[in-house]
Amino acid sequence: MKTLHVIKIGGNVLDNPERLARFLDDFSAIGESKILVHGGGKLATSLSATLGIETKMIEGRRITDAETLKIVTMVYAGLLNKQVVAGLQARNCNAMGFTGADGNVIPAEKRPVKTIDYGFAGDIVQEKINTKALKVMLESNIVPVFCGITHDGKGQLLNTNADTIASALAVAMTEDYKVVLHYCFEKQGVLRDVDDDRSVIAKISQEEYKYYKIKSIIADGMVPKLDNAFNAINSGVDHVTIGYSGKIRDMVADVEDAGTVLVK
Amino acid sequence: MKTLHVIKIGGNVLDNPERLARFLDDFSAIGESKILVHGGGKLATSLSATLGIETKMIEGRRITDAETLKIVTMVYAGLLNKQVVAGLQARNCNAMGFTGADGNVIPAEKRPVKTIDYGFAGDIVQEKINTKALKVMLESNIVPVFCGITHDGKGQLLNTNADTIASALAVAMTEDYKVVLHYCFEKQGVLRDVDDDRSVIAKISQEEYKYYKIKSIIADGMVPKLDNAFNAINSGVDHVTIGYSGKIRDMVADVEDAGTVLVK
Repeated sequence: MKTLHVIKIGGNVLDNPERLARFLDDFSAIGESKILVHGGGKLATSLSATLGIETKMIEGRRITDAETLKIVTMVYAGLLNKQVVAGLQARNCNAMGFTGADGNVIPAEKRPVKTIDYGFAGDIVQEKINTKALKVMLESNIVPVFCGITHDGKGQLLNTNADTIASALAVAMTEDYKVVLHYCFEKQGVLRDVDDDRSVIAKISQEEYKYYKIKSIIADGMVPKLDNAFNAINSGVDHVTIGYSGKIRDMVADVEDAGTVLVK
Repeated sequence: MKTLHVIKIGGNVLDNPERLARFLDDFSAIGESKILVHGGGKLATSLSATLGIETKMIEGRRITDAETLKIVTMVYAGLLNKQVVAGLQARNCNAMGFTGADGNVIPAEKRPVKTIDYGFAGDIVQEKINTKALKVMLESNIVPVFCGITHDGKGQLLNTNADTIASALAVAMTEDYKVVLHYCFEKQGVLRDVDDDRSVIAKISQEEYKYYKIKSIIADGMVPKLDNAFNAINSGVDHVTIGYSGKIRDMVADVEDAGTVLVK
């Protein structure tokens, strides 16, 4: 089986032109099949503020009213996605930018209102991901670049967390590829001590993760990220790495100390 | 040779939800191969105004400074393109949205500064249009949806007139298809008398066009549109229709009185 790398970059990479340029250099140089998923960054929040639209977040998730949906569609699917695509094309990487609506690649459902109304937030319908279209593209040496927008198939665009899109795509592609999922961010990996950049945990198994959670060594924002990652591993993804965007080539090459490796 | 319809809709269709819905119904129902190209509409101008960015137009073309480029990329490639794609997907039409940067389908060059500096405006490099990628998509029953953004291959996005994109794509595809180009707008066709909607000129040959121009029967904004159209015909496009968006099915079926037909 061929290897496929699904790589997620967050706002901290997108917001920093130098960091982004370096990442795009490194990403283009990856020889194996690859899919890029990017988050949003501060731009959506600052554009909302300029337009006088209040940004509401609950547990790290944006509450997406109709106006906010317009903003994130403009920023994620428009500006950021196309800047990344043009940047990759300049590096001879045949990128094509997508939302989940394009080619109906990622069908989703509007999140049902329970205690919180997330507005136009989309939960991915995992079993309906259009893996056939993705496979055709990958085999034609196209590099798909996804932003955090999906749709419900009835004409409604939806805002979907980019971490979740990355893990959903990774899981969906395991039928045809050995899939490795990489989360790139501004830190060197999962830290034992959040204030000490050198305290990277090299490897975490599922058992160890439970221990780290109980001991609150892994807490806050890292918990949903790692829950997501272990879900992906339990659904067929080979392993997950979490590390610094500037080290993506080492992460892909499975070099020791290139971030944190999560294994079954 | 199979027939390919390249269809351009302008802002007056995009800005009117009912007109857009009807157009998308009709467009989805076209059985032959098709490519959609859409313009911008008032949204880019109104968003610029809200953000305090002055919109400068010279001869109907937007002067694209760095801030304006961001706006048009957000509005054209983000919001409008994805709304159209989601709307088509809801109608079982397998749309995929593109800028010219995606898959390097439409390479362009920044317009050289002569008397006017158009800023980040892109002139298409006709012979470099990636017809192979378009053909693969069309043969996979994908319906490409293009907005008016291209790139220079060096990482720079560029703003390109959507009418020009439509005719450039139409010409490029003539090697593999019998191509018909359709310009949809809010009027019933090219009018003999701009104030009389019933004065549609049914058919115009190149010779007749010269006459109409000399007599100023065809003037103003219609001149670049028709120049563009006749250029396309002279470069291999079978014929061009200009008519009302609500009549696209008749235009495609070559029904009499469905707008103005331009022929060699």
